[in-house]
Amino acid sequence: MTVSPGATLRDLRERKPLVHQITNYVVMNETANATLALGALPVMAHAREEVEEMTRLAGALVINIGTLSPHWVDAMLAAGKAANAAAVPVVLDPVGAGATTYRTETAKRILDEVDVAVLRGNAGEVATLVGVEAEVRGVESMGVGGEASELARAAARGLGVVASVTGAVDHVSDGDRVLAVANGHALLGAVSGTGCMSSALTGCFLAAKRNEPLEAAAEALAAFGVAGEDAAVDAKGPGSFHVNLYDALAGLDPSTLDGRARISSE
Amino acid sequence: MTVSPGATLRDLRERKPLVHQITNYVVMNETANATLALGALPVMAHAREEVEEMTRLAGALVINIGTLSPHWVDAMLAAGKAANAAAVPVVLDPVGAGATTYRTETAKRILDEVDVAVLRGNAGEVATLVGVEAEVRGVESMGVGGEASELARAAARGLGVVASVTGAVDHVSDGDRVLAVANGHALLGAVSGTGCMSSALTGCFLAAKRNEPLEAAAEALAAFGVAGEDAAVDAKGPGSFHVNLYDALAGLDPSTLDGRARISSE
Amino acid sequence: MTVSPGATLRDLRERKPLVHQITNYVVMNETANATLALGALPVMAHAREEVEEMTRLAGALVINIGTLSPHWVDAMLAAGKAANAAAVPVVLDPVGAGATTYRTETAKRILDEVDVAVLRGNAGEVATLVGVEAEVRGVESMGVGGEASELARAAARGLGVVASVTGAVDHVSDGDRVLAVANGHALLGAVSGTGCMSSALTGCFLAAKRNEPLEAAAEALAAFGVAGEDAAVDAKGPGSFHVNLYDALAGLDPSTLDGRARISSE
Repeated sequence: MTVSPGATLRDLRERKPLVHQITNYVVMNETANATLALGALPVMAHAREEVEEMTRLAGALVINIGTLSPHWVDAMLAAGKAANAAAVPVVLDPVGAGATTYRTETAKRILDEVDVAVLRGNAGEVATLVGVEAEVRGVESMGVGGEASELARAAARGLGVVASVTGAVDHVSDGDRVLAVANGHALLGAVSGTGCMSSALTGCFLAAKRNEPLEAAAEALAAFGVAGEDAAVDAKGPGSFHVNLYDALAGLDPSTLDGRARISSE
Repeated sequence: MTVSPGATLRDLRERKPLVHQITNYVVMNETANATLALGALPVMAHAREEVEEMTRLAGALVINIGTLSPHWVDAMLAAGKAANAAAVPVVLDPVGAGATTYRTETAKRILDEVDVAVLRGNAGEVATLVGVEAEVRGVESMGVGGEASELARAAARGLGVVASVTGAVDHVSDGDRVLAVANGHALLGAVSGTGCMSSALTGCFLAAKRNEPLEAAAEALAAFGVAGEDAAVDAKGPGSFHVNLYDALAGLDPSTLDGRARISSE
Repeated sequence: MTVSPGATLRDLRERKPLVHQITNYVVMNETANATLALGALPVMAHAREEVEEMTRLAGALVINIGTLSPHWVDAMLAAGKAANAAAVPVVLDPVGAGATTYRTETAKRILDEVDVAVLRGNAGEVATLVGVEAEVRGVESMGVGGEASELARAAARGLGVVASVTGAVDHVSDGDRVLAVANGHALLGAVSGTGCMSSALTGCFLAAKRNEPLEAAAEALAAFGVAGEDAAVDAKGPGSFHVNLYDALAGLDPSTLDGRARISSE
């Protein structure tokens, strides 16, 4: 295991991987700009007619069910299978799983039919998918009774993924090891779509480090968290924080990132 | 009648109601972030498969026809009916009614099949729906021949709603009383989606004060207008104003809001 | 030939043309706000049920295939034909042509069935459509082997359009003359959707100067480039640049724009 967000970021910026995102309407511009600011290339494409071809061009596929509907779910499944066939790693963001039956079942169906490398969600969403009792309320504020570290481990084992459970402290597990990431800032919770951005950036890191999904997922969260810390410095509220976040992602310095990342084994 | 935007805002921030929005592609991120900045929780969901379930979780439903299409209209109607059955108050924003037959007829159909608590639109849109002659040009700049205060009253009576007609001065009526709201700033007209934001915030206030929709609608516009005034202070143009608007919404102070709100009975 | 972005901008701001945009989910808010900041009126409508009626109200139609799907393509074709019948000029932005067969074929089909006034794309996209060999990678970074000036001329001749090929220097051709536009800033490449904005602004200028599409297209790029230069002055990265861009578009001064525009004949 080598955890070095700085090294991965440097590599990612050199290779500029294409990250195919089938994501929700609310955050498309935001995740595209976060991807671009970090140093990768976003592409959004959702038509059944082209998703497989687009996915095969990509370094990673990010599936986000934030505003799902049947045509989109079909495309997500087709893209996921094409990604699997082409060995393109897949990130799933199960936005709102637990809030409605349709979301929960769609997330489960994708996990069932597609080999997902990293599942990135909040505690409520992940708990729903792994069968743990959780309080779910909308998509912005979800709590969970259990312990986040154990939840990540249980989800990874139960679902056969790297589980990346974000919160005040993030927990990433491959079912065996758990990495805790203690970067970030409270203002990240005040902007819609920051969870989705963290999934997009997970795709970017995974594209650059596909054989170490646990490390890639933790590094992505550390990098995003550090950018959040930088963005908060001069923020006057969620609007200016949001703007600063792109500046901060673009300004992330690979040479200092490892020193600032608060990643620890649990 | 008790008009106190400060008290409602304080209550809203404590309860953090979930506000279900079926809105247009152009402004989804913007209305989500405005909702979150104010202190409520936005959720966007438009699939026929889940809208009823999502609406029943919500404190208010906001329907906005800005980029409508048949599947979306079906979902709006289904969600509206579910909201009515569950006593969840409904806000309708008839974006562009009058510009095309499809928009006008869809807005009328929703008003016909759903019990709408508050209709929030500009003078041209509302005039179209109540049958008054109006000049309609696009969705950003619409004028109307009549008197806005009378238009609000006529719309409220004719359509059986609280009519919230926004403009340089806003007029909100339940068909009997009319409240005029004189907050705001010209730059609100220079940013796309501020009308949609005002509808989203109307949903937030309505979730906190469902039994007084007239007051809730006026309070929402006053709060939004005050935020607009604050956002304009350091703005260099529509871009920085837009950013400042989220900071200003988050920074709204319940203890000074009533004093700054310019709400009067007409 | 009269090239005067300042005069066209002044005229456009007086007349405030409605610019109908059938564009992608990623950039809708951005192109709407860029249109509004410049001084025109954006309207987004994509339903087959209303696009023809909406297009007939407009001063220009902008078709952008960035997140296409069959229903949308049907609407683009219907709107394009309605625009032709009503003599409303059409701009096509073939986002990602060359990346997937579906995009390439859709762009070709639109060019075949609709009389497109201006084709605005990057070198890779335009080269694909005119049959020149090109390296295509995603939608953000595309290179091309040939010479951009010759590519623009060849595309204009081969496709029967004004070809507007953007890059570090932009080249606009009607098949005979070529205008090079040397305004802009590297940060425009760091924000998602700036290409789409340039297409939207091309629609604005074309609405104000429909009989001179070559000049209108070049003027639009010069105006956008000058705004990019202004936006870069205080930018700390792509986030603040993006915000400044709207301020700069709104702040464009018609009386100095001609002197700042770097448009030359090639």
